[in-house]
Parts: sequence; C-alpha cells; structure tokens
Amino acid sequence: MRFLKLTMAYDGGAYAGWQVQPDQRTIQGELERGWTQVTGESVRAIASGRTDAGVHALGQVVSLRTASHLPCDTLRRAVDANLPHDISVLTIAEAPDGFHAIRDAVNKRYRYQILDGPVCDVIARHFVWHVRQRLDEEAMGVASQCLKGRHDFSSFEAAGASRATSVRNVTDVKVIRHVERGFDRIKLEVAADGFLYNMVRNIVGTLVEVGRNRRDAEWVREVLHGRDRRNAGPAAPPHGLFLVRVDY
Amino acid sequence: MRFLKLTMAYDGGAYAGWQVQPDQRTIQGELERGWTQVTGESVRAIASGRTDAGVHALGQVVSLRTASHLPCDTLRRAVDANLPHDISVLTIAEAPDGFHAIRDAVNKRYRYQILDGPVCDVIARHFVWHVRQRLDEEAMGVASQCLKGRHDFSSFEAAGASRATSVRNVTDVKVIRHVERGFDRIKLEVAADGFLYNMVRNIVGTLVEVGRNRRDAEWVREVLHGRDRRNAGPAAPPHGLFLVRVDY
Repeated sequence: MRFLKLTMAYDGGAYAGWQVQPDQRTIQGELERGWTQVTGESVRAIASGRTDAGVHALGQVVSLRTASHLPCDTLRRAVDANLPHDISVLTIAEAPDGFHAIRDAVNKRYRYQILDGPVCDVIARHFVWHVRQRLDEEAMGVASQCLKGRHDFSSFEAAGASRATSVRNVTDVKVIRHVERGFDRIKLEVAADGFLYNMVRNIVGTLVEVGRNRRDAEWVREVLHGRDRRNAGPAAPPHGLFLVRVDY
Repeated sequence: MRFLKLTMAYDGGAYAGWQVQPDQRTIQGELERGWTQVTGESVRAIASGRTDAGVHALGQVVSLRTASHLPCDTLRRAVDANLPHDISVLTIAEAPDGFHAIRDAVNKRYRYQILDGPVCDVIARHFVWHVRQRLDEEAMGVASQCLKGRHDFSSFEAAGASRATSVRNVTDVKVIRHVERGFDRIKLEVAADGFLYNMVRNIVGTLVEVGRNRRDAEWVREVLHGRDRRNAGPAAPPHGLFLVRVDY
C-alpha cells in the first residue's frame, strides 16, 4: 500500500462540512466517491481537521492509503476532474509509510474575513462576514494578543465538544485591515498546534465585541481565564472562515 | 423632478444582463422593482452600458429621474436593502438636470480575469476564465498595444450589432500577471470612450490566441485592420468580465 498526501481547496458553502454524514453532501464524501471513480477502490480519506458546514479551505491536507499504482500527477488530474467545481485537489505527493493527516499535523493556520461597512462586496459575499458597523481593528489586535501561547481554550470551545484536553498553543494571532475592490476588510489569522471545535469562530465573535467597542481587551483576558464558554462572544458565521495551511 | 446618479456593483452570474427582458431576471428589472418598493413610483433606470448576461460590474453608473424627496443616503440604504444579495447600490448622488448615464459617459474601463494553470481557484471560479494552458502574457501585452488609439473596431464587434459607427478611441490597454491565493492570474484592462457589443470579450479571445502561441502580434494588427469579425479569436466567456468604472 502507498501513503499519499493530498492538499485540497474548497468552497464549503454547499456542504455539510468535511465529514461523511448520511444523506448529506460532504467534502470527504465527494473526494472518496471521486477517488473510487478513478481507481475502482474504496478509500478512507483523513483530513487534518474536520471543517464545519460552510467553512472553506485553501490548503486542507488529507492522508490516504491506496493500492493504485498511478503516478501522483495522473491521480491528481483524474480525481480533480471527477469532483464538483467547488472542490479541488491542488497537489498529490507520496508520503512516508503511516502518514496520518491528523496525528502528524504540527501547526494549522486559519483565516477569517470580515467586511465592515455599510455596503457588502457582492463579489466576495459568500466569503466574508458582513458587519455594517465600522470596527476598531486596533483594539481587536491589542485584545487578541493575550491568546498567544499555551492556554486552556475551553472558553472558546463549542458546547458539547469533549476533547481529552482543551489546552492548545496559539503560535500566532493577527488582525489586519486592508482594502479589496474598494471595500474595507479585516483579516484575522490564528495559527496553533491544534484547534478546539468552533475555536476560531468563537475567538472572532469575541474579538468583534471588542471591535464594536462593547468590550475591552481586559474582558477578552477574563473570558480566556474564566474557561466558561458562556462568557465569550457569539460564534462568527462559518462562511468567513478558511483553513489556510497545515504544517507537518 | 430630481436627477440622480447611482453607482452599482453586481455579480451578473444569475442574470440575463442589464436590460429588462420579458420573463428573465435582469439587473435593471431588479433595480426598478426595488426602487418602486421604496418610493412607490415607477422609474426608468438608464445604465452607462448594457452589460451582457453573466457579466459583472464593480462600478456601473445609472441615471434616474425621481419625484422622491428622500435624502440620497436614505434612498441608497432602502433600495439596497430591497435588492437581492448579488446586486448592490454603492452610492447615490444628486446629478445635474438632464444627466444621462449613456450620453454623458466620457470613458469606461473593463477588466477581464483569466486564471491560467492546471487547477482552478475554487473561491474565484465564478469570476475568472480558467485556461489550463500557461499563457504568454508578455506576448499578449505586446500584441495588445496596436489596439490603442482611434480605430474602427468592427473586427471585434459581435455579429448582428448595428451601431452608427464602429470607431472608438481606446485610451488604455494593459495585460498584467499577478498571483492571488497562490494562483496565477492574468488581468486585462481596456479603457475607451465607448465599446461595441462584445468588444472586450472578442479582444480578450483574440489576445488569448496570442498567449497560447497560436498567433503573433502581427496577426492582431491584421485582424484589427481587416475589419472582419470572422478573423478574430472566439469571444472569451462572460463570467471573467467586469465593468470597473465609468467617467463623466
């Protein structure tokens, strides 16, 4: 058997997330179906993380065990051609024996896009959270810095999740304002050794409370240390979120 | 009566173009319907140019005569809120008496986006022409320069069109390669005092023949001077085209 490493991009708007679910369109379901069409074999595709319904990826990493002898680039082209237009296989490469996209991941980076202003950018509307009020991105940037480092992030974990530990090491957080097609945008990036369920969306929702001047940086620190989900801001909607890259 | 100048952005993907047509969804139809919902009056909206089915706009300009006394910004917000999410009214401003979006236009700028490479960018897929072959953008840039200036552009006018004259003054043409989200893109911009029906898409299709190394710059010059549509390249698809701005 060969172990392969795939990188994928997708517009998650039409999917119930990564993971196969009965009677739902999922990214994993589409990939496994496309793979079978090309190779005739059934495979189990393992992603670095199960993106939620509506969440996008620019560089999701997937591991796969296959009996196929086709060259990587032939497989890439053939599988990609058998996927819907909103899912792409960007690369396929040979991986070391036993390569596992979840277990072997060292760091992941997510990006969240907010458009803050009275009018939305129609071209980007499926990929930004439109907040009509102008946000204070400097205050958001300052408030975000307390998240850096090794902390228990249970305040930012969705209810019902049950991981062994909710301690994660956030290696980078940044908040950047830029202009695209004439529209103001705020880009939030968070990198960590791992993420809890809904963690980025809960962090973004919390920082937006600061951006609206409803709360200050001290409050974010209190939310983090309180380890109680009920204190944090509401989760930001999924369609502004992108899994950008995964490092191994 | 008041004359107003609107600027609008739209994702043309779901529309049969600007102009009202029976039993079809059009941008003009949606705007006039939204206007009536807000003001109770019937209006005729005149755009600087009738974008085709599937073509987008970042800065379409529209003129309108209204009896409404509502302030411009109130009108903008209310009309925008009554439009589908793929159409936006960006600004509304008072215009001089008799302002007419077609007649008074001095210059227009279009942009065309090509993604040339084996894999498409799923996030941009509705807004780029995906050409799998790597194109020679330098050759395209060189070939495009003969289009600058005042010429008879009938070689690039769609069959069946019947304008009084097919002479136009192209004030700018440029071909720029850049990278977006890791994908190579070629951006073609054309500005002119006016455009013939399908002119930009025919120019792009012709320059792409050069980019594919099937033709050279001399051929583009011959096509232009031949004034025969049958010599030009096939029209580029509509979904890569944006009306960027109109000057008055």
